[in-house]
Amino acid sequence: MLAADGKKRVVIIDVSPQIENGRYPAKAVIGEPVTISANIFGDGHDEISASVLVKAKGDRVWKEFPMHFINNDRWEFKLVPEKAVFYQFQVLAWIDHFATWKKGLLKKIAAGQDVPIELEIGANIISEAAGSAKAKEKITLQKWAAQIKGASTEAAVEIVTDQQLELAVCNCRDKETTTVFPQILNIDVERKKAGFSTWYELFPRSAATEPGKHGTFKDVEKLLPRISRMGFDTVYFPPIHPIGEDKRKGRNNALTAKAEDPGSPWAIGSKLGGHKSIHPDLGTTKDFQSLVKAAKKLDIEIAMDIAFQCAPDHPYVKKHPQWFKWRPDGTVQYAENPPKKYEDILPFNFETDDWQGLWQELKSIFDFWIEKGINIFRVDNPHTKSLAFWEWVIPAVRKDNPQVIFLAEAFTRPRIMERLAKIGFTQSYTYFTWRESKKELEEYITELTQTDKRYYFRPSFWPNTPDILPPHLTHGGENAHIIRLLLAATLSASYGLYGPVYEYGLTTPMPGKEEYIDNEKYEIKHWNWEEYTRIREMITRINRIRKENTALQSTWNIELAETTNDQVMCYGKADISNGNTLLIAINLDPYNTHSAMVRVPLEKLGIPTDAPYMVHDLLSGDKYQWQGEWNYVALNPHEMPAHIFKVEY
Amino acid sequence: MLAADGKKRVVIIDVSPQIENGRYPAKAVIGEPVTISANIFGDGHDEISASVLVKAKGDRVWKEFPMHFINNDRWEFKLVPEKAVFYQFQVLAWIDHFATWKKGLLKKIAAGQDVPIELEIGANIISEAAGSAKAKEKITLQKWAAQIKGASTEAAVEIVTDQQLELAVCNCRDKETTTVFPQILNIDVERKKAGFSTWYELFPRSAATEPGKHGTFKDVEKLLPRISRMGFDTVYFPPIHPIGEDKRKGRNNALTAKAEDPGSPWAIGSKLGGHKSIHPDLGTTKDFQSLVKAAKKLDIEIAMDIAFQCAPDHPYVKKHPQWFKWRPDGTVQYAENPPKKYEDILPFNFETDDWQGLWQELKSIFDFWIEKGINIFRVDNPHTKSLAFWEWVIPAVRKDNPQVIFLAEAFTRPRIMERLAKIGFTQSYTYFTWRESKKELEEYITELTQTDKRYYFRPSFWPNTPDILPPHLTHGGENAHIIRLLLAATLSASYGLYGPVYEYGLTTPMPGKEEYIDNEKYEIKHWNWEEYTRIREMITRINRIRKENTALQSTWNIELAETTNDQVMCYGKADISNGNTLLIAINLDPYNTHSAMVRVPLEKLGIPTDAPYMVHDLLSGDKYQWQGEWNYVALNPHEMPAHIFKVEY
Repeated sequence: MLAADGKKRVVIIDVSPQIENGRYPAKAVIGEPVTISANIFGDGHDEISASVLVKAKGDRVWKEFPMHFINNDRWEFKLVPEKAVFYQFQVLAWIDHFATWKKGLLKKIAAGQDVPIELEIGANIISEAAGSAKAKEKITLQKWAAQIKGASTEAAVEIVTDQQLELAVCNCRDKETTTVFPQILNIDVERKKAGFSTWYELFPRSAATEPGKHGTFKDVEKLLPRISRMGFDTVYFPPIHPIGEDKRKGRNNALTAKAEDPGSPWAIGSKLGGHKSIHPDLGTTKDFQSLVKAAKKLDIEIAMDIAFQCAPDHPYVKKHPQWFKWRPDGTVQYAENPPKKYEDILPFNFETDDWQGLWQELKSIFDFWIEKGINIFRVDNPHTKSLAFWEWVIPAVRKDNPQVIFLAEAFTRPRIMERLAKIGFTQSYTYFTWRESKKELEEYITELTQTDKRYYFRPSFWPNTPDILPPHLTHGGENAHIIRLLLAATLSASYGLYGPVYEYGLTTPMPGKEEYIDNEKYEIKHWNWEEYTRIREMITRINRIRKENTALQSTWNIELAETTNDQVMCYGKADISNGNTLLIAINLDPYNTHSAMVRVPLEKLGIPTDAPYMVHDLLSGDKYQWQGEWNYVALNPHEMPAHIFKVEY
Repeated sequence: MLAADGKKRVVIIDVSPQIENGRYPAKAVIGEPVTISANIFGDGHDEISASVLVKAKGDRVWKEFPMHFINNDRWEFKLVPEKAVFYQFQVLAWIDHFATWKKGLLKKIAAGQDVPIELEIGANIISEAAGSAKAKEKITLQKWAAQIKGASTEAAVEIVTDQQLELAVCNCRDKETTTVFPQILNIDVERKKAGFSTWYELFPRSAATEPGKHGTFKDVEKLLPRISRMGFDTVYFPPIHPIGEDKRKGRNNALTAKAEDPGSPWAIGSKLGGHKSIHPDLGTTKDFQSLVKAAKKLDIEIAMDIAFQCAPDHPYVKKHPQWFKWRPDGTVQYAENPPKKYEDILPFNFETDDWQGLWQELKSIFDFWIEKGINIFRVDNPHTKSLAFWEWVIPAVRKDNPQVIFLAEAFTRPRIMERLAKIGFTQSYTYFTWRESKKELEEYITELTQTDKRYYFRPSFWPNTPDILPPHLTHGGENAHIIRLLLAATLSASYGLYGPVYEYGLTTPMPGKEEYIDNEKYEIKHWNWEEYTRIREMITRINRIRKENTALQSTWNIELAETTNDQVMCYGKADISNGNTLLIAINLDPYNTHSAMVRVPLEKLGIPTDAPYMVHDLLSGDKYQWQGEWNYVALNPHEMPAHIFKVEY
C-alpha cells in the first residue's frame, strides 16, 4: 500500500503549545501573546512556507496567518487572543515553488548569469497558480506571467519582488502538496484574572472588632475598604460551612475540644448542614451575597474554599452512606496516614459504585455557590481526590460558567501537581515557599516559565498559609517577610498571603513544626486592624506597583540577570507591547547589607545598548543613571531590601 | 457526560520508548535491554502496582512483567528481547488495595496498635480477590482470608508478607479500576549488526594490483582476507553501475572529462544500463554474487550504495520522462544550488503525478539487489529525496526482508537527520566528523545517548569519507588518524572508514576545500596493499578489541568521566550482564603528551568502591593497580595516544 499523501514533501512535527498531544488545551489569557510554533522541514533545498489557521469559538471562518522561520527548522507565529473563549489552531506548510524559483533567480542574476529560461519557468509557475485562482486574481496573475516572460533583468527583478505577487501566488497553493498537521489544537483563553491576581486569605470568624465575638460577614464587609487600599483583588475565605461537632479538634489541634472551641472550618458539616450551608454564626445567605456585592464594587472577588471531605456528623454520612468506606466495626473509615489517624475527617470513597452520584453531587456544590455570586474556588488538597473526577468536573462547571477560576491547593509530588494543572486547574500553589537560595529560586522560576509547563501550570506564590510558617520567616522576622513578599509579588503574576498574620509578621511556630502556634484554624482571633506595620506598608506599595506596571502582570516574561553576589537576586520583566520595563534586585539575606554588580539583560529587555538609561526605583522614589550591562546595587534589608526599578530610555 | 472510566484512579503518562506518540517503533537489537518506563501515579496515598504486557510478533499470548518504582513517580521494566521481530508492549497500573492495607497494617503493628479490625478488613480484601480467582487459587485465597481473620499479630505478619499471597491477589485485580495506557507501542528488534558494525569503504575499481588496470570484483575477492584480518565485518562499495558519459566530470571534478577519465560512480546510468546493471569493467553479476558469497564465508557483508539520481544518459530519462522536471528549452532540470549547477546529475521529481510509479520502481532496485544477496544499503543523500518515500519504502522492503540494514548518508540539519532515523533508517552518519574538542564530543555523545534519540537514531561514526577530509586529519597526520579512529571505534558501536586512504593516512586536500585532492571519486587508484602502516596496525588492534569486549558493542552504555585536562577525554563502558568493563582515556592532542587525573565513575560502572582494582591496557598490554575514583594517566600521541583499560575486580 502506498501512502495516500505521497506528494506532500513537507513534515510538520512538535507543534506547540500542545499539552499531552492535544488532549488538554493550552492556557492563555486575553491579550497575552501565545507563541504557536512547530518544526517544519522538507527534503532538499526548496523554500518552504507555513501558516497557522486560527478560529475563536463562535467564529465562522478560519483566519490564516503566516508563520516565520526562527532557526533550526523552527517556525512560529505569535497569536494575541482577543476574546476569553476557546481558540483552535492548525498548522500547515508547503514547498513554495514560487519562492524557490524567485530566490534562485535573484542569485543567478546577482552572479551575472543569463536567465531567459528561468524567466519562462517563473512565468509557468505563475500561470499555474492563475489556474486555480479566483476571477480577479486570475487576470492579475496572468498579466504578471506574461510580463515576466521575456522581461529585461531589471524589469524581472521589479516584478518578482512585488509582495502582491507573492501573496497572490500563495493564495493559489496546491492542496495536493500542502501538509496539514492532523490535529486541531486548543487554547483555553481566560479572563485576565486567571493569570494575574492578588489574594488575601482571611478567616471571617476573626473579623469582629469586639474581642470575644464571633466575626460575621457583616464584619468582613467593613474590612473590605481596608483590604482594597492594600491592593488586593481577591479575598479568600476558609470553609464557611457548619463545623462538625463529633471528634472536633480543640486549640492547637488538641484531640478533644473544649465546649467553647469553634473547631476547624475544614471539618465540614454537622446537623446544621453541609457544603451548601453557611455557619450560622457567620450570618445568612443574604449577608453573604451582600458581602460579595460590596466586594465587587471595590473590584474584589470573594474566593471560596472547596474541601471535599466530611466531619463525622455531616448529613451526607447518613444520607449517602455508599459514598464512604465502612469498617467491619460499623464505623466510617476516617483519613489516616498510618500510624497517624485523623478521626475528625471522613474522605469520600471515589471507588464507590455510585461514583456518578457522588460526582454529580460534588459538581452541584460548585454550581450552588456560583449561583450565589462566587466565581473563584480555592480547592483544598485536590490531589487526595480522584484525578478523573477533576478532569470531568472542571470543564463541566466551566461549560456554563467559563469565567470560573480554580486554584489547586496541592503541595505534593511534581507529576501530580502538573497533572492537576493539565486537567483543568486555573492556578496552582507551588514549591515557592521552600525555595530559598538564589540558585533554588532561579531554577524553579526557569522550570515554571521556560519548559512546557508554561502553557498549563499557572503558579500562585504564597509566602505563608495557615498550614505553613516556613523557618525563614520564623528566623528572619519582619525583613524576611518583606523579602519573601517582594519575591512572590514580582516573580509570579499571581500571589497570595495568609493575611493578618503576615501583616503583623507573626513568627512563633508550634514547637518542632513549621506551623503557626495558636493557629487560627482552631480558634477565633482578634486583630487590631488599624495598627501601622512596616510589612503592611510594603504590601500596599508592591500591590500598587503591580497594578501600575503591566510587566508584573505576566509570569512568563522574566529575564534572569547575573549578579556578583549569591545573596543578591536580579531579574528583568518587560511588557514590550507597551514599553513597560522593570528591573528587580533583591537582597535575599534579611540580616545583612549586600552589594553586587548586576548584569542587565539589555537586549532581551529591549533597552538600547548604546546610550545611558534612567532607572527609577518605584519603592523608594530614587533615580539613577545607568549605562551598559554591568551596574552597582547595595541593599540594606533593615531599610529597603530591594530595588524595583522602572527603566526609562 | 460523565467519563466512562470514573473508577480508574491511576494515571499513566509519558510512556517510553515512544517515538512521536507511537507513530514509529523504537529501535532495539536482540539481547539489548530496552527500558520500558512511565510516569504512574494516583490521588492520595494508596499503594500502586504496575505491569507491562509484552508480546513478540508471532506470539499468541501477552506476558505480564511487574514494573518497579524508580523515583518521582517513574516506574520501569527492563525488557531483553530474544527475537529479531517486532515487539509490542502496553503498560497498566492500578491502586493496590492489598498492598496499601498490608503497608498500613505493618506500620500499625510496629507502632504497637491493636489491629483486629484491620485484620478483618484484610480478610475482606483477600476474599474479594478470591471472588474473581480461578478454581485452585480461589480455594487458597479463601484459606488465607480465614487464617488472617482473628490471627495473632505474629501469625498475621507471617501470612501477609508471603509473596505467594501478594501474587495471588494481584492476579485477581479489578478490571474496572485498572488503568491501561491506551496505546500499544512497538519495538523494532533487529539483528545484532543493526547496532554493532564495522565498515570499510572501498572503490572496487581501485582493487587491481596491476597499475593501469580497472579493478574488478575478482580483485576485491582477493582482498577480502586482508580486510577480514583488519577486523571489518562490512565492506561498502560506492555505486557499481554504468557511469554516465554525457556531461561526465574529469579528475578533481573537472567540468569536462578526458577520454580516459572513468567518471564519478555517483553519476549513475548510461546506454549500458542503470541502477540494476553492473559496470562492465567490474565484472559480471556472477562475479558479484561470487564475491558476496566469499565475503560471507569471512563473516563480511557487502554493503551497496543506493544513490537515487541519474546521469543525463541514464535509460530512465527516455523511458520515464515523467519522473524528471523538464525545462522550457526541452532539457531535463539538473541539480543546482544557485548559482552553482550540477549538470551531470538529474534528480527525480518526487512531485511527479506518477509518483506511485516512481516509488515502485525505486523499491524494485532494493529488491533486485536483495535477491542478489545484498542485505545492507548505504543510501546516498536521502535528505534530498522525499521523506514520505523513505517512510514508505523502508518498511515495505523490510516487510519481506526484515534483516535489511539502511545507513543514511545525510549530513544535514538536525531535525532532518532525526526524521530519517525515525522513519526507518537503521543507522545514520553523524556530526562526529566535526566534533573535535572534549566539550563538543561529550555534548554530542550525551545528546545521542541520553535523550530520546537513543531509541531511534543509531549513530555510525566516520572519521573520513570520500567527500570529507577534515582539517584535523590534514594537520594532525598519522597521530590524528589514530586518535579519531579510537574515538569513533569506542564512542560508537558502529563506525566506518574510507579505507585505503585512511590506512595510509593521506592528508592533502583540494586547495581551499576539506576534501581529498586527486579524489578517487574521479579516478582509479592503485594501492600497495601489503605495505605496513602504523594506522593499519591500530585499526586491526581496535577492531579485535571491539570483537572481544561486548562493552564496546553498545553505544548506549557510555559513562563520561571527569578529567583534569581538557585535552584528555575519558569514559567508561560496561556490559554489566557479562561483567565486561572498559575505561577509555584518549589524548585529543596529536602533537603533545598530556597527563591528567581522571575520575572513574566507579558506581555507574559497577566497580567496587572499597578495594583496589586492576586496569589492563588492551592496546599496550600494560597493567596497573588503581584505587578509588581519581587516578593518573599520561598519554604520548607519538607512542600511543590512548589507554583502553579492561577493568578487573
